[in-house]
Formats: sequence, C-alpha cells, structure tokens
Amino acid sequence: MKYELLDKLREVNPIAFNICNFVTVQDVCNAINSIGASPAAVEANEETKEAEDLIKICGSLTVNLGALIDPKIDQIDTTIGLADKYNKPVILDPVAVGASPSRDQRAIQLLKKHNIRVIRGNAGEIAALIGAQWNAKGIDAGEGDLDPVQIAKDCANQYHCIVAQSGKTDIITDGDNVTKVFNETDLFKLRVGSGDILSSLIGCFCAVSSDFYEATRVATVVYATTGELVANVVNQHQPSVFSATLIDKLNDIDVKIISSNARVQSTDAEE
Amino acid sequence: MKYELLDKLREVNPIAFNICNFVTVQDVCNAINSIGASPAAVEANEETKEAEDLIKICGSLTVNLGALIDPKIDQIDTTIGLADKYNKPVILDPVAVGASPSRDQRAIQLLKKHNIRVIRGNAGEIAALIGAQWNAKGIDAGEGDLDPVQIAKDCANQYHCIVAQSGKTDIITDGDNVTKVFNETDLFKLRVGSGDILSSLIGCFCAVSSDFYEATRVATVVYATTGELVANVVNQHQPSVFSATLIDKLNDIDVKIISSNARVQSTDAEE
Amino acid sequence: MKYELLDKLREVNPIAFNICNFVTVQDVCNAINSIGASPAAVEANEETKEAEDLIKICGSLTVNLGALIDPKIDQIDTTIGLADKYNKPVILDPVAVGASPSRDQRAIQLLKKHNIRVIRGNAGEIAALIGAQWNAKGIDAGEGDLDPVQIAKDCANQYHCIVAQSGKTDIITDGDNVTKVFNETDLFKLRVGSGDILSSLIGCFCAVSSDFYEATRVATVVYATTGELVANVVNQHQPSVFSATLIDKLNDIDVKIISSNARVQSTDAEE
Repeated sequence: MKYELLDKLREVNPIAFNICNFVTVQDVCNAINSIGASPAAVEANEETKEAEDLIKICGSLTVNLGALIDPKIDQIDTTIGLADKYNKPVILDPVAVGASPSRDQRAIQLLKKHNIRVIRGNAGEIAALIGAQWNAKGIDAGEGDLDPVQIAKDCANQYHCIVAQSGKTDIITDGDNVTKVFNETDLFKLRVGSGDILSSLIGCFCAVSSDFYEATRVATVVYATTGELVANVVNQHQPSVFSATLIDKLNDIDVKIISSNARVQSTDAEE
Repeated sequence: MKYELLDKLREVNPIAFNICNFVTVQDVCNAINSIGASPAAVEANEETKEAEDLIKICGSLTVNLGALIDPKIDQIDTTIGLADKYNKPVILDPVAVGASPSRDQRAIQLLKKHNIRVIRGNAGEIAALIGAQWNAKGIDAGEGDLDPVQIAKDCANQYHCIVAQSGKTDIITDGDNVTKVFNETDLFKLRVGSGDILSSLIGCFCAVSSDFYEATRVATVVYATTGELVANVVNQHQPSVFSATLIDKLNDIDVKIISSNARVQSTDAEE
Repeated sequence: MKYELLDKLREVNPIAFNICNFVTVQDVCNAINSIGASPAAVEANEETKEAEDLIKICGSLTVNLGALIDPKIDQIDTTIGLADKYNKPVILDPVAVGASPSRDQRAIQLLKKHNIRVIRGNAGEIAALIGAQWNAKGIDAGEGDLDPVQIAKDCANQYHCIVAQSGKTDIITDGDNVTKVFNETDLFKLRVGSGDILSSLIGCFCAVSSDFYEATRVATVVYATTGELVANVVNQHQPSVFSATLIDKLNDIDVKIISSNARVQSTDAEE
C-alpha cells in the first residue's frame, strides 16, 4: 500500500474544506492540523459566496451530516455542487443515517445527485443507504445478519464510489477490490467523533491523490494503526486521554511506523 | 440512595437527546458517552422533522439555554412540546438566567407551559426563576441573604418539579424532601461547562428511572463524588487536566466507589 | 510594562463578551475562564435583545470572523454598534482575511464604520486589511517582501487602532510606538485556535485598562511567555497536551514569572 501518501500530504499541506457538525468540529480540525493538512471548517447553514472562494482553493470537501440536517440540506447541496463544478473530491459521512427515515432520504438524494467519491460510515449507516436490514443502534461488524463485506460492496457499486465501512474490522472497497484493516481498539467507540475524524482524514488524503481507493485505505490504515498504538499505552477507561494522545500521535507518526504495525488483508493483486 | 441506577444506565445505554450550547457541547457529549449513555445533540435552531424522530427513540431531553436563546426559543418550545407528547422527561438548565431580563422571561414561559421534570442551575439562576433577590454574578451557596434550601424548595413547589441547585453544597429537592451533597471541588468552577455536564447526566439517569427525584440526586452524587475524587489527584490550577480526567473517570466509576465516598444528608425517612 | 494588569484582571473578573467561531469556542472560553475573566460567548447569527443586555454588563467585546461571515455580518455589525453605543472596547480578529476577496471587503467595512480598538491577526491578515501584497497561505513573519513592522504600523495608522500582529516575533503597535515580543513556540501553529485565544485574552485585558496599547502588549507577552514556558516541558509533537497545559498554566502564571521570562523590545521611552 502506498503509505508514502502520508509524506506527500505533509509536503502539500492541502486545505481540507469541511462541513462539520458542532459537536466534534474542534477535535476534527485539530486532527487535520496535526496530521499535516490545513483545516477550513464551516457549518452548513451558510451562504455560498465564500463557500465558492474556499472550494476553489481547497483540495477536497468532507461533508459530515451530524446534528439535524433538514434546515441545512439546501446549503450542503449547493456546496457539494460547487465541488462538482471545480472537480474537487467529496467525502460523505452519513452520520446517524438509519436512525431517522427523513435523514435516510436526504443522504440518498445527495448520493444520487452528486459525484460523491467516498462514503465513510459504520455498517448500520452503510446498510441504510442501500435499504438493507440492519440493527441501527449499537453498531458492530457482527450485529446484522448480512455479510458486512457484501453490504460495503453493494453500496460502492450502487453509488459508484469508494466505501470505507468502520467497525472492529474496517472494510474499504471500490465495489470490486476489498481491503480489510484489523488494527483496532474499543476506545474509538468511547470517544464521540472518532468516525468524524476518520472521514476528514480520508478527505486530507483524497486531496493529494486522485486514486481515491488508495487514498481512502491509506487514511484508514494510518488512523486505525495510530489508534491501536495509542491504546496500547493508555488505560481502557480513558477516552479523553486516548483522544488527545491520538491527535498528538498523528503529528508524530511516520510511514515506517505505520507499515511495520499495520495489519491489513487485501484482495488486490499487488499485495 | 439507589446508586445501582448507575448499573442500570450502563445496561440500558439510553439515547440522551440534548439541545446543547455550542461552547460546551463537545465535553457534554463525551461525558454522556463516557458514563454509558448515547448522546444525540442538536442546536436549537433546527426544524422539527428529525427532532420528532429523535424524541421517539430517546430516553430523555435535556435543554440547555446557554448562548443567546431569543432566536431559538420557538424551536426549543416545539421540541419540548414533542417531549410532552411522547412522555419523555425534560431537564432544563436555565443558563445565565438572572443576567438578562429577557432571558428570565423566556425560561419562565417554558416552565409555565411545559411539563419540565427537573431544573438544574446554580442558586442565582434558581432564585431568578422565582423572582427572589440574589446576587446574579459570582454565584455561591452563601452569597445571597436568603436560605438556599428555601429557594430550591420554593422553585420546586412553584413549577411542580425537581430542583437540583448546584453550589459548594448541592441541594436536590422535590419541594418537600431535601438531599444535600457535600462532595465538592473548586475546580468545577474553573472549567466552563461543569454545570452543563451535570444537567445532561441528570438527563441520562432520568432516562432509566421514572422516580425523577431519585434519578436527579443519584446523578448529582455520582458527579460531585467523581469530581472530588479526581480533584484529589490533580493540582488546583489544572482545569483542563481536571476536566479530561473527570470525563474519563465517569467511565471507570462504579456503585461501590460512589457509595463509599459520597457525603450526603437527606431528610427522607429511608436514610 | 505594566504586568500588574494581570492582577487587576483577576481582581475585577470582567465579563468578556465574545462573538466566537464554532471551531475554537470551547478552548477560547476555557482560556478566558482560566486566566481569571468570565466568558460570555455567542454565535453571530443571533438577535440583538440579549446582545444589548450582555453589552451593558461586559468589559469588552471580541469579534472573531472565523467560519463564513457572510450570513452573520449584519448581526456582527449590530453588536459592534451596541459596543460603540455603550463605549465598550472592541477587539477584531480578522480570521482568514486574505484568503477570500468577499471576506476582505466585510472586514474592511467593519473597520471603516466602527470604533475598533484593537486588531489581532497574523501578517497575512494584517497585510490584506491594508491591501499590501503578501503570501496569504503559510504565514510567517519573514515570508512577504515587505517589512512586517511597517505593515503593522500602516494598518494601525489607517484604522486608528492598536495592531497586534502575531508571528515568530509578535509586533504590537499603536502606529507610532512598537513593542516586539520574542517569546515563541512552533506549537502555537500546530493547534487550531491559538490566535483566537490571544485575541480573546487581549479582550480580557482591554476590559480592565483604558490604555489599549498597554493592555494589548501585556496580554501578548503573558500569552507568548506562558506558551514558551509550557513548550519547554512538552514534546514538540504534542499539540493537544500543549494546549491543555497552556490553558491550565494561564490559571497559575503570575506577574513575577511573566516579568522574569518575557523577552521584549520596545521603542517606548519608558523601557
């Protein structure tokens, strides 16, 4: 895997444009800054004049559907449209899709209308996007009756994009090839925003590579491996210490550490 | 006191619906997550379609009046109305009531119109809700001329709800019975959002017990005792370390630790 | 320099009214609280009734133009107008001015219309406010062709205010006198919101002294010196640990520690 994308990210220092939710925005921006990109965060309920200025200079747009999206959906739609226009890759985090019917509709509309490059969510969220039956609360890789790999592949094929499905094992697929990442820690679930950060880090890597499958899986491996390494040195009841240490470690981590600690399985010919 | 509600909270893992303020939302949600509930946070200036979806699946609604409430009051009113409709307990944190006359009016309107189950505030805020004279800045249990227990009881009786009044000594009352919690640390005041977190933890406990007096006092004891234990191991000039350690400790604390460290006095027959 | 303003700040405990951006508001308010003032934070998209109540009781207003300002500019304009009316000093942080043409116009309009007392920004932002050529990304004191001191003085003269220009060396000027602060650490740049915090601390000091040049430079020295002291005890790849320790240290720092660690050069007669 092309872990050297991490070096490129730091060299390019791309502007990562993010439509954030207000719960996790501070951690998300600090993680982006720490790994070596430059965060530009807005809330969705904003007008478009400056949004277009930002789209022009950014490397990618990550859209987080956290909090309630109804009153913001028009602005999200407009901003993604600008990203389409300027050919900037869009990463969608369908937060809590599956928990509310109106929310599912909104996310699916965006996916049908726009050129979304990557979807990053947990198994329940990914299942909801393709109308598959799944237990939407307390998401774990093993909780539904369906095969999580198949769900991810179906979603990728349906929306013609990369899917990064988070869980005990992370699954990244372009609908054909599949990469599994086994590095993990339960501490991710104890901290609000762990998934939001991964989505935004995928945005950072997609800003420096037009191979979005590669960018997505490298981002996922970097994050999962760093999290596992940090979890090894903190207590399992320390979500705050874990989170702060993880954000800091993203600044420190390098290609060598990642490649020697990653536990990955891939269907690609190359590996 | 029924400290075993803490075990029940973790077993049930209720969805704690919160209308948060943007200053403290991250800490509030992480505290909710850490103790064992599942946070769902929105800002008040949102439409109601998804709000109703969330009210249906939540265990309680905590409403924080932080930041300016004028432009949000209609939405707050609507969401509390939905909680009434679906019989979900509502906890109100009247942040900064007493500091601005228009703010007092708004909070009192909500209390008169809706079935609010618990009010959590400091003595100045509680006094303002009943029109009592109090020094609204630099709140401490001893700063007004009135008896803090009487203020809390009067407020509980006037609005037919539980009052949790925070201060050096916390006072919880249903207007008749009174519980005092003596565990404390000055570090709570050094950290923005300490009160907001308590309000939301009360929301978590009210989601798993229909005895709201019991739920409120157990939540208060758990929080005050955990804070005091953490304060014993950090320096008195470390609000950030205190806050992070407190959030983590909420994940670790158990019924045995709480019951052996709580310093409580109650007028109830049972104790 | 009148470092004893720090003691006065703690004695007065002024209410520091802040129009914050949602990315950094939590750290900003905790820093204000930690140093000894009382934060009151709002988002810009709010109505004015409560804003006027808050303006009446506050010591100063700090306006942060972070996130997109287009939809909020009317409310920002109204609130600054209220500060003019009640003669409360206004500190402006022109976040990301220089990055977007529409943003530059908005900030300049505010400066022309209102009685802004202090501008706090980096060299790129200050240059953009006076239409000077500068590299707007990756700001450093040495990156443009122009003399940073001259840019700061020109800006101060053009808008009749104090300018605090942040960089490797901080420059504070009233357009005539110049103070340079050499205390520094690269960790400030690794953490989102480092500049926002400084702007708001300047707001705290301007709330307790009508000599805004003195208040601004004391605030800058206190922050830069505290940051440098903290950086000496943490690892250079720990932005989260740095930030938390810095906020805590602001509670602990005193006039003696500041005056014995500050590295300052001033054109004033007194020093």
